[in-house]
Amino acid sequence: MTTRFSLAVVPGDGIGPEVTSQALTVLDAVAADHDVAFERTEYDLGARRWHATGETLPETVLEEIRGHDAILLGAIGDPSVPSGVLERGLLLRLRFELDHYVNLRPSKLYPGVPTPLAGSVTDRGDIDFVVVREGTEGPYVGNGGAIRVGTPHEMATEVSVNTAFGVERVVRDAFARAQARPRKKLTLVHKNNVLVHAGHLWKRTVDAVATEFPDVTTDYLHVDAATIFLATDPARFDVIVTDNLFGDILTDLAAAVTGGIGLAASGNVNPDRTAPSMFEPVHGSAPDIAGQSKADPTAAILSGALLLEHLGLPEAAARITTAVEADIADRGTTARRTEEVGEAIAARVAGGVAVG
Amino acid sequence: MTTRFSLAVVPGDGIGPEVTSQALTVLDAVAADHDVAFERTEYDLGARRWHATGETLPETVLEEIRGHDAILLGAIGDPSVPSGVLERGLLLRLRFELDHYVNLRPSKLYPGVPTPLAGSVTDRGDIDFVVVREGTEGPYVGNGGAIRVGTPHEMATEVSVNTAFGVERVVRDAFARAQARPRKKLTLVHKNNVLVHAGHLWKRTVDAVATEFPDVTTDYLHVDAATIFLATDPARFDVIVTDNLFGDILTDLAAAVTGGIGLAASGNVNPDRTAPSMFEPVHGSAPDIAGQSKADPTAAILSGALLLEHLGLPEAAARITTAVEADIADRGTTARRTEEVGEAIAARVAGGVAVG
Ligand SMILES: CC(C)[C@H](C(=O)O)[C@@H](O)C(=O)O
Ligand SMILES: CC(C)[C@H](C(=O)O)[C@@H](O)C(=O)O
Repeated sequence: MTTRFSLAVVPGDGIGPEVTSQALTVLDAVAADHDVAFERTEYDLGARRWHATGETLPETVLEEIRGHDAILLGAIGDPSVPSGVLERGLLLRLRFELDHYVNLRPSKLYPGVPTPLAGSVTDRGDIDFVVVREGTEGPYVGNGGAIRVGTPHEMATEVSVNTAFGVERVVRDAFARAQARPRKKLTLVHKNNVLVHAGHLWKRTVDAVATEFPDVTTDYLHVDAATIFLATDPARFDVIVTDNLFGDILTDLAAAVTGGIGLAASGNVNPDRTAPSMFEPVHGSAPDIAGQSKADPTAAILSGALLLEHLGLPEAAARITTAVEADIADRGTTARRTEEVGEAIAARVAGGVAVG
Repeated sequence: MTTRFSLAVVPGDGIGPEVTSQALTVLDAVAADHDVAFERTEYDLGARRWHATGETLPETVLEEIRGHDAILLGAIGDPSVPSGVLERGLLLRLRFELDHYVNLRPSKLYPGVPTPLAGSVTDRGDIDFVVVREGTEGPYVGNGGAIRVGTPHEMATEVSVNTAFGVERVVRDAFARAQARPRKKLTLVHKNNVLVHAGHLWKRTVDAVATEFPDVTTDYLHVDAATIFLATDPARFDVIVTDNLFGDILTDLAAAVTGGIGLAASGNVNPDRTAPSMFEPVHGSAPDIAGQSKADPTAAILSGALLLEHLGLPEAAARITTAVEADIADRGTTARRTEEVGEAIAARVAGGVAVG
């Protein structure tokens, strides 16, 4: 009996299509052995469509996407489109409309991966943590505006919106993840000495939910201090919970110190399953190398593993991460083409045979 | 003829008094040779006063402080005081009331300083840049609030306020600094693909002011990408201009990658000189090591050098930075007490004699 999952695939802009295609190859490579099949519908959203029609995410397309079991997304954004149009109108719109309140971003320094950190830092312990970034509130809500634009009297605001409802549900999710990990440690990152209203809501919520998770230890760091520790002692982190903007910043830095944005996967998760969750590499569309088969598809492939976990296929997911780890350990210094990386990982997944 | 400068000294909390005292010792050590004297008035502000009187910054004290030529500040904040009370009520109040719109934070990797970055990163070039952080706007304005606090319906907001007036003056200052440096490069850091109103104001302002500085090259980075480059290629930066919150985050990371927060100096500058500027180490009050002579006073001492530059004494400032560089180059692995570091630097400044 084959279980069929329907995937909405949004390759998007720049290197998005190239890396998504490899992620799908690898998903197909595990499918048969686990008695699943992935049916996909591709959605042509992004810069090309915006130029052709002026649309970012038509209502009808959003409704169609809602009908799928999960979404695989490549990357969104192109220099030919004014900054913000596709990000707000398509990527963030999907995250908000589909209530992706847990933006899950694991960071792990795999053996053999080059890191910008000195040995004195990486020797401090295993670097393996996950950032639970809130995905539907904070300064990302789009609650801002401007008056007298273009005059010397212009005034522009951006409002960070934080609700007890929104903070509590993501904090509870983060505690549950911490609880399930060996170290059981949760770090709240905010800036509650300056952003006192939002910051105190976050802090009080963590303190309150902590009583439900007595084996999880918690601590608090200001966001500025958190960046210091990410550079000097990332092994100290287990689970980090933080707001949408701080999470955006911390996860790029986390990716950088654990071998680069080419390896960083993410899931935009709706834990209540009222809408499909969406899986995408943390990296952007990298228009400068688009279409040249230079992009590393590993982050997209690992995002596929997160997708499998979300669909309740942890063993299939583990096969992908194991294959990726093995591929990374064998990476030499010769650059491989995007499809070479994808095929090598797919081959390992399918047969356990080292290719490449 | 001795020129007398009046300094308002705010030692503050935690390690603040220890490091400030060393900064003053070093300032005195250069004074005589440059025919200047520093008269100081010490202001007892911070946790002790708040506990005793409930005051953070009384109006009369603020008015007295205004009458000085410059302010030397140690550190503000103590765990015995609710988070935000002293930061907002004292430190940020000084920055805002005295219109410190240029928060100047140089980062330089001195030879011999241990850095968390790998040789492959530090070999890419000299790391020597300055962050011009806006100091009087952004999410720091204190324009936020909360309703239904403590209930499941709590809602908390934080509003980032950005004006053409406020952005333009700091951007112009940053361009002038870039123009005066050999590389003449200015990088705007923001998040204009998400915070579109504020972000576009910043971007348009940089583009407009750029026409007045034709030899300065400019580029733009999203804040998340900027953290990646700070970890993987900090040598690429010359002058960074950014908003109050992004500047807070980037400068702690910048300090971390250039040898730590123990060396990072800052100036809260009012370039129009309508009120005294304020100089302080980037580090906090570190209550865990307060009173134990364990704190490194170097950041406070270098803040003294920035103070001298601001008072029009660049040669005296250079003597301090040269002495600090020499002291750093000679640092062994044995820890020195706070006052040993200060005295060693003071001795080098006074006589060029190596001590320590
Ligand atoms: C492209 C952009 C809107 C997005 C974000 O800021 O969330 C990206 O940086 C990310 O981290 O997924
Ligand atoms: C103490 C705090 C209010 C302050 C800030 O956020 O500006 C500090 O982190 C700094 O960078 O000077």
